[in-house]
Amino acid sequence: MMIIMKANATPQEVEHVIEHVKSVGLAVHLSQGIEATIIGAIGETHNIPVEQFEILDGVDIVKRITQPFKLASRQFHPEDSVFPLDGFTVGGEEISIIAGPCSVESRSQILETAHAVKEAGASALRGGVFKPRTSPYAFQGLGEEGLEYLAEARDQTGLPIVAEIMSQTQLELMVKYVDVLQVGARNMQNFNLLRAIGETRTTVLLKRGLSATIEELLMSAEYILSGGNKQVMLCERGIRTFETSTRNTTDINSIPVLKNLTHLPVILDPSHSTGYSDYVAAIARAAIAAGADGLIVEVHPDPAHAVSDGKQSLRPEKFAAMVKQVGQIAQIMGRRLASVQGEYSPTRQDWS
Amino acid sequence: MMIIMKANATPQEVEHVIEHVKSVGLAVHLSQGIEATIIGAIGETHNIPVEQFEILDGVDIVKRITQPFKLASRQFHPEDSVFPLDGFTVGGEEISIIAGPCSVESRSQILETAHAVKEAGASALRGGVFKPRTSPYAFQGLGEEGLEYLAEARDQTGLPIVAEIMSQTQLELMVKYVDVLQVGARNMQNFNLLRAIGETRTTVLLKRGLSATIEELLMSAEYILSGGNKQVMLCERGIRTFETSTRNTTDINSIPVLKNLTHLPVILDPSHSTGYSDYVAAIARAAIAAGADGLIVEVHPDPAHAVSDGKQSLRPEKFAAMVKQVGQIAQIMGRRLASVQGEYSPTRQDWS
Amino acid sequence: MMIIMKANATPQEVEHVIEHVKSVGLAVHLSQGIEATIIGAIGETHNIPVEQFEILDGVDIVKRITQPFKLASRQFHPEDSVFPLDGFTVGGEEISIIAGPCSVESRSQILETAHAVKEAGASALRGGVFKPRTSPYAFQGLGEEGLEYLAEARDQTGLPIVAEIMSQTQLELMVKYVDVLQVGARNMQNFNLLRAIGETRTTVLLKRGLSATIEELLMSAEYILSGGNKQVMLCERGIRTFETSTRNTTDINSIPVLKNLTHLPVILDPSHSTGYSDYVAAIARAAIAAGADGLIVEVHPDPAHAVSDGKQSLRPEKFAAMVKQVGQIAQIMGRRLASVQGEYSPTRQDWS
Amino acid sequence: MMIIMKANATPQEVEHVIEHVKSVGLAVHLSQGIEATIIGAIGETHNIPVEQFEILDGVDIVKRITQPFKLASRQFHPEDSVFPLDGFTVGGEEISIIAGPCSVESRSQILETAHAVKEAGASALRGGVFKPRTSPYAFQGLGEEGLEYLAEARDQTGLPIVAEIMSQTQLELMVKYVDVLQVGARNMQNFNLLRAIGETRTTVLLKRGLSATIEELLMSAEYILSGGNKQVMLCERGIRTFETSTRNTTDINSIPVLKNLTHLPVILDPSHSTGYSDYVAAIARAAIAAGADGLIVEVHPDPAHAVSDGKQSLRPEKFAAMVKQVGQIAQIMGRRLASVQGEYSPTRQDWS
Repeated sequence: MMIIMKANATPQEVEHVIEHVKSVGLAVHLSQGIEATIIGAIGETHNIPVEQFEILDGVDIVKRITQPFKLASRQFHPEDSVFPLDGFTVGGEEISIIAGPCSVESRSQILETAHAVKEAGASALRGGVFKPRTSPYAFQGLGEEGLEYLAEARDQTGLPIVAEIMSQTQLELMVKYVDVLQVGARNMQNFNLLRAIGETRTTVLLKRGLSATIEELLMSAEYILSGGNKQVMLCERGIRTFETSTRNTTDINSIPVLKNLTHLPVILDPSHSTGYSDYVAAIARAAIAAGADGLIVEVHPDPAHAVSDGKQSLRPEKFAAMVKQVGQIAQIMGRRLASVQGEYSPTRQDWS
Repeated sequence: MMIIMKANATPQEVEHVIEHVKSVGLAVHLSQGIEATIIGAIGETHNIPVEQFEILDGVDIVKRITQPFKLASRQFHPEDSVFPLDGFTVGGEEISIIAGPCSVESRSQILETAHAVKEAGASALRGGVFKPRTSPYAFQGLGEEGLEYLAEARDQTGLPIVAEIMSQTQLELMVKYVDVLQVGARNMQNFNLLRAIGETRTTVLLKRGLSATIEELLMSAEYILSGGNKQVMLCERGIRTFETSTRNTTDINSIPVLKNLTHLPVILDPSHSTGYSDYVAAIARAAIAAGADGLIVEVHPDPAHAVSDGKQSLRPEKFAAMVKQVGQIAQIMGRRLASVQGEYSPTRQDWS
Repeated sequence: MMIIMKANATPQEVEHVIEHVKSVGLAVHLSQGIEATIIGAIGETHNIPVEQFEILDGVDIVKRITQPFKLASRQFHPEDSVFPLDGFTVGGEEISIIAGPCSVESRSQILETAHAVKEAGASALRGGVFKPRTSPYAFQGLGEEGLEYLAEARDQTGLPIVAEIMSQTQLELMVKYVDVLQVGARNMQNFNLLRAIGETRTTVLLKRGLSATIEELLMSAEYILSGGNKQVMLCERGIRTFETSTRNTTDINSIPVLKNLTHLPVILDPSHSTGYSDYVAAIARAAIAAGADGLIVEVHPDPAHAVSDGKQSLRPEKFAAMVKQVGQIAQIMGRRLASVQGEYSPTRQDWS
Repeated sequence: MMIIMKANATPQEVEHVIEHVKSVGLAVHLSQGIEATIIGAIGETHNIPVEQFEILDGVDIVKRITQPFKLASRQFHPEDSVFPLDGFTVGGEEISIIAGPCSVESRSQILETAHAVKEAGASALRGGVFKPRTSPYAFQGLGEEGLEYLAEARDQTGLPIVAEIMSQTQLELMVKYVDVLQVGARNMQNFNLLRAIGETRTTVLLKRGLSATIEELLMSAEYILSGGNKQVMLCERGIRTFETSTRNTTDINSIPVLKNLTHLPVILDPSHSTGYSDYVAAIARAAIAAGADGLIVEVHPDPAHAVSDGKQSLRPEKFAAMVKQVGQIAQIMGRRLASVQGEYSPTRQDWS
């Protein structure tokens, strides 16, 4: 960490900063220039907020040499993280495609969808059972009943299941059922929830918040990683901007930026990042071409009657067409679509 | 609710939409134009997502006549909500000024600050004991120990206390101590937390999310109100934009917009909305001039050694000067600063 | 256009709106519902601002049925616009790749770059001679001297040339030299310049403004088209958001959205939309995978000594690698890279 | 300027940077630390883009000590700029209020408005004669005819006149008529126009672009100042964000930030920054409370029939009420409303 003093900083101010640096266990290297004095603070600095120094009298700017996240950083873990997910791997050569409805609505709906997406080439099944809804009057999910239907769908298809967790109080129940705990955009900075999930050994899909920076996403991943849970996938799902012709703005730049900064797998959600089913396939192709490790896509057998997110859900046949295109792009990128076997083999428990 | 069909919608599509409207308990009024057919859906519509109709075949746009929030809306509650807070009222003639440090750091720090802000004219004391920190390595708050210090500060000064709640699991503890439960920007859409708070009868200070629209803020208030807790203050604390010369962008427009849309009290947090202590007084004055009902301001006896938010914290003497200016603006607006008595009178329990 | 009256609009207000509709030459269709009266305004409405009706007493919202742009709209021109550019075509099967330095710096620099990008597979040469620089103290371009160098590069390589125009006063000079007039992001709403360019018959590359909506980009294209100049390419070059890890945020969604709304060719500028040469290839691939018709990319023989935009400029060998990848993606999309012949054949004059 | 080298920069890279610094006429001060080598570049640096050094091999970050704008900066001109405007002054104790219609529509409309705003307390008259309209089909202004009407209004009321210039080609005409040349948000980075205006000695009102940072606004002012025209007022008129309940988001923070960074007068346009006449008075009060030097407000005798911006225009009686409130806030701020005499005294010519 470099602490650059103001041009007119007094010797007393410089001395005071030096003491402060030492008091947090860092070594000091002083270099006195004409325009400015620079105090190098050397040691383990990722866990020290720069603000602690910025507010001291005489300090101009404080610049990190190492990133504020460590476990998530490629600086300390140059190799890609690759981890198993019921028969395939995430983060390696295989491109995973998670598909399913926004909400689990009924047993028949989720079973029908599970078989349809499996057939079309999906490698995992998503479905919400606790729904974060803007309105308190909207459908809030089936809860445990929905989890049972998801488990049945997994038994029938072999697809691992992904569902969103909204609160610590749901954690015990969720880890009993799901293969992947999804943390939604609105909870990306629910730090209590992140800590609790970090204590489990269930794989996590962490979505970027609506207006979270890429660095903040990585800091949230750091919360989970610091608990010892190392299987974290990051997900770009669109950010909020001034543009209103789509629901969100897909930050496609985040794909190469994240692949550069972190070793964690990165996937993209073209359903939420566009909001319209007509645009999903184009953005799914773009994601893989940009280097993403997978996709999470909303698919519904009858979008017009979905209880939520119908506008952005693909019919199974449109999803199947999308998977084909994505597979071709994957090939050019030197990768292939992940495929699951017909039966469920509970490697899930082995991860803990 | 008006459902405007596409120019080329078929009679079957129109018929299908009509059935759907009836199926959710609404009456239908059909008007067939040359350019478009419009289906009026009449009845209690605030609890019906427009999306349910938008996805039906042949539908172009769906337009609400009434707002999606009801309990928070001025349409159904034209009078300002005014409620008591330990010796003064919020939302009426009195301007409340909540002040204190970002974090409770020690017994002496919070007691010293409490007396200083009381003397300067504050009407309530803030202090964080559970801190939402971007980094897992940063100071996370004193927890219950901090609440005890806050309670002691209240006993000594008579100032009601405001502290942030981050998780449902902290609720039982928090309501034992605090007069106002603050919901932070990052939890504005933590719907489980909002529901749980709605079940209590403790006053709430609900902060706008970093990239939440004004409508979303009101929908989150609706979650709390729908549980029966009617004492909700809204707080503008700056939104995230492209501008980087300040920490956030104060959306001053939100003050008159909120006062127009809702009967709930609206306050502003110039510390977070600017991020720099030098700009706090100017924005505090602007808030009251724009019609805000109060302020929440970070004050620290020694900002340079604050464990968090030191850059945006005022020293007590600068805070006192700010209060004087704000008092003058309040007078022009036909209002006055709230004042508390020297002793703590626990009207708090009476609210439940 | 549909004018939806407020629930409590008086008969006089309705009558007044009807008169206003007739006064601008539109026919009226009235439908009186229970919740609202709707006045249909029928006829040529794209050139009538909705605001004219929105401000009338009693009016709630005004909804266009047809888009506010007409010549740019696919509604009236369902076929893709395809037009020739010195030996290849834009907007059809061929993917055009425009490449070259941010600024023309010297004769040797532009000639060297021209040959390098030609060899790597570029189909056109870019180079700025009038530079829009944030600082008045920065290099402002070589002016006509630069145009002469560009023309020489074209003579030697056969590549058509693209250069930015900043002001009407440069128009006469520019059309003498360039094959494509580029309108930069900062001038997207310089309406006087757009009108002037609309009077020429030189092909235009219109860049989206930093915070322009997709609709505003199309309205700006409409300015040019309405002057009779039909050869307009649109260019996504990144929008300004809160994210700071890249120079801009590539709005990849804009590619399928624009292809849906307009018949004009759409290209993407991954150099400006990311700001870092390391991310250019990933975003270039994504653009073509999303359906873009071409790319414009900054290439410099020695980025470290470029007078502008060095950080985002590719070295020729990195550019060549990018072209190869893009070519493979193009093939999957059923397209191919445009290729130019070795000699310059001035079809340019034929367009006027 | 400080150039911080990467931890692993080679001695050759350091040497190369040092040479580059010297080659642009700056002195070098080298300080070699453990974590990083820092090269101080000393001398006149405001006119040297940091990018020139950022792209050199081995460079990590480049940090300015002095701002990139110089003439606009308070660092070099600590006193507020105060300049005369036909009988009153801008930037000093007096608060100027510029009022009038968006567009000059007819002789009677502008004369009626001029008298009304004068009576209500305005100190200058605004009116557009060349209109930047998003649609090529919208009303584009009366041109010189409108300027003649404005001049007549000035003769009758003594109010100096403010009108927007859209293009260099209008400059000669405009300076003959107007007292203040307004540069609109869309032209804030029309650098050719800024340079041309810098050559005149007519006072300028420079509006912030829709998504321009505060630093970019000051860089644009620098273009004008560097031509020798020192009478530049800056204007906050709202920025584009995700919030849609208002037309733009008033960046009220920009008022104290600008007053801190620059000596130039700063005014606010609450009509454009909110978009709704109901919110104009609240934001006008807030602006003055935050320290603004004036306001520019749209007033129309009959907003429902305004050809543009009717929704955000105040009726004269509402404007008069706003002026009264603003006057009271001004008093608290130790200031007073500017007042003009009944007759036009052409001090304007003296400025050149």
